[in-house]
Amino acid sequence: MAEAIPGLAVHTITTKPWPVERCIDEYAAAGVSGITLWRRDFERLPAAAVGRRVREAGLECCGLARGGFFPAVEAAGRRAAVEDNLRAIDEAAACGAPVLVLVCGAVPGQPLAESRKQIAEGISECVGHARAAGVKLAIEPLHPMYAGDRSAVVTMGQANDLCDVLGSPAEVGIAVDVYHTWWDAALEVEIARAGEAGRLFSYHVCDWRLPTEDLLNDRGLMGEGCIDLAGIRGMMERAGFTGPSEVEIFSDRRWAQVQEVWLEEVVAAWVRHCG
Amino acid sequence: MAEAIPGLAVHTITTKPWPVERCIDEYAAAGVSGITLWRRDFERLPAAAVGRRVREAGLECCGLARGGFFPAVEAAGRRAAVEDNLRAIDEAAACGAPVLVLVCGAVPGQPLAESRKQIAEGISECVGHARAAGVKLAIEPLHPMYAGDRSAVVTMGQANDLCDVLGSPAEVGIAVDVYHTWWDAALEVEIARAGEAGRLFSYHVCDWRLPTEDLLNDRGLMGEGCIDLAGIRGMMERAGFTGPSEVEIFSDRRWAQVQEVWLEEVVAAWVRHCG
Repeated sequence: MAEAIPGLAVHTITTKPWPVERCIDEYAAAGVSGITLWRRDFERLPAAAVGRRVREAGLECCGLARGGFFPAVEAAGRRAAVEDNLRAIDEAAACGAPVLVLVCGAVPGQPLAESRKQIAEGISECVGHARAAGVKLAIEPLHPMYAGDRSAVVTMGQANDLCDVLGSPAEVGIAVDVYHTWWDAALEVEIARAGEAGRLFSYHVCDWRLPTEDLLNDRGLMGEGCIDLAGIRGMMERAGFTGPSEVEIFSDRRWAQVQEVWLEEVVAAWVRHCG
Repeated sequence: MAEAIPGLAVHTITTKPWPVERCIDEYAAAGVSGITLWRRDFERLPAAAVGRRVREAGLECCGLARGGFFPAVEAAGRRAAVEDNLRAIDEAAACGAPVLVLVCGAVPGQPLAESRKQIAEGISECVGHARAAGVKLAIEPLHPMYAGDRSAVVTMGQANDLCDVLGSPAEVGIAVDVYHTWWDAALEVEIARAGEAGRLFSYHVCDWRLPTEDLLNDRGLMGEGCIDLAGIRGMMERAGFTGPSEVEIFSDRRWAQVQEVWLEEVVAAWVRHCG
């Protein structure tokens, strides 16, 4: 077992070919100290059992991905989304994840402002349940290239505005992912604003490849793209964030690699660019 | 010959497989009233000859794409970029294009703020030449997914700021492309701001497909995506813009079609969604 590296967390999607038990064992052996889970990790093992294995391996559970997808044209669809998020909150509590990350959703063709209104309503219906469960909700602003169908919240500024509207600072905050936010000239100001409000709940790292060949599954390993990782981590720390830098890499090319080798590359890149 | 439809312009990249002479003849026959040229159109025929053919066919030349790509790490690279833009201005004048569209550029890994400074410097070095040539320069804010290597200017707000800094309202304005800007919550405010300053020089239409399968060459035909074309055209008109809606569609799948059929689809979609 390598000694655990403080602040190094890995999201299980990064090593998607592995079942969650394998992720847990391999991460712990590789010196990873934190793990972010994905709801698909509970398809074979229940959330509580996964959480127990995480703790037994000495890993910290950083969060659960993902809730969200609140907007829908029909009220029934919005109701179903809220119910699914309540279940996700239960799963987060069961596995010991302190944070549920929200990919807020968007309806193709529906005005983004309308979707944001539905997102605010949906989250507000989850706040009480989240509070009771001891789970925080982290709004993750997504890159504008996902505005069509994945998130009407595409900037840190919009995420901050949404948090202000919701007014539940203990339960509702923000997950900052460098992939989604690095291009934004307002990033430093909005991270500082989020820090002042005590709502910086999570921080995700990867890199932006040039060229990027797929909108979903071509994220880069830290250091192989153009994102100023040290700069953005600096913004987070100046805003008071002390949590881990969670590696979250969706990559068809990386998932095709031998995952043991890939995980070694992830750890080495994290140490070099995020440590 | 179909009667020319006022306000319907097509960018020659939309029918990329055709040489420019074919574009001119087919567009005129299909009822298109305006044409946007691309510098590659001058590879076989000089710009002046292309411009003559455009006028003889009864088409209006709306603009030339593209100048820009000002940032570079070395001063020599920035100098070369300015010189290339001066040539592009000459080509615009020679073909009778009133506007040269600028894709401003970015250097992978260089801070975007630094690239924007180099862009401002580069454009300022072109303003005198543009004025003398009677060619306007239109800054085209690109979608944030191109921030890595194509444009450090990724919002209408940044394009307006850049125009304010440059302070040459007669020569420097903005090209608004729905593909690049539709996601932006500040779009209406920033289009109004640009309109007040008299800097709305061009307007490009296409659509955002779901899913988008390629970052460069999978733009949609108007109506087959999620962009509110009527809404954005309304913003432009309320801001005083009266120019054409230029169709600019980069699409591998469309370029693989029989281009006569594709052009018919373009005209029909324009009439339905932009007319």
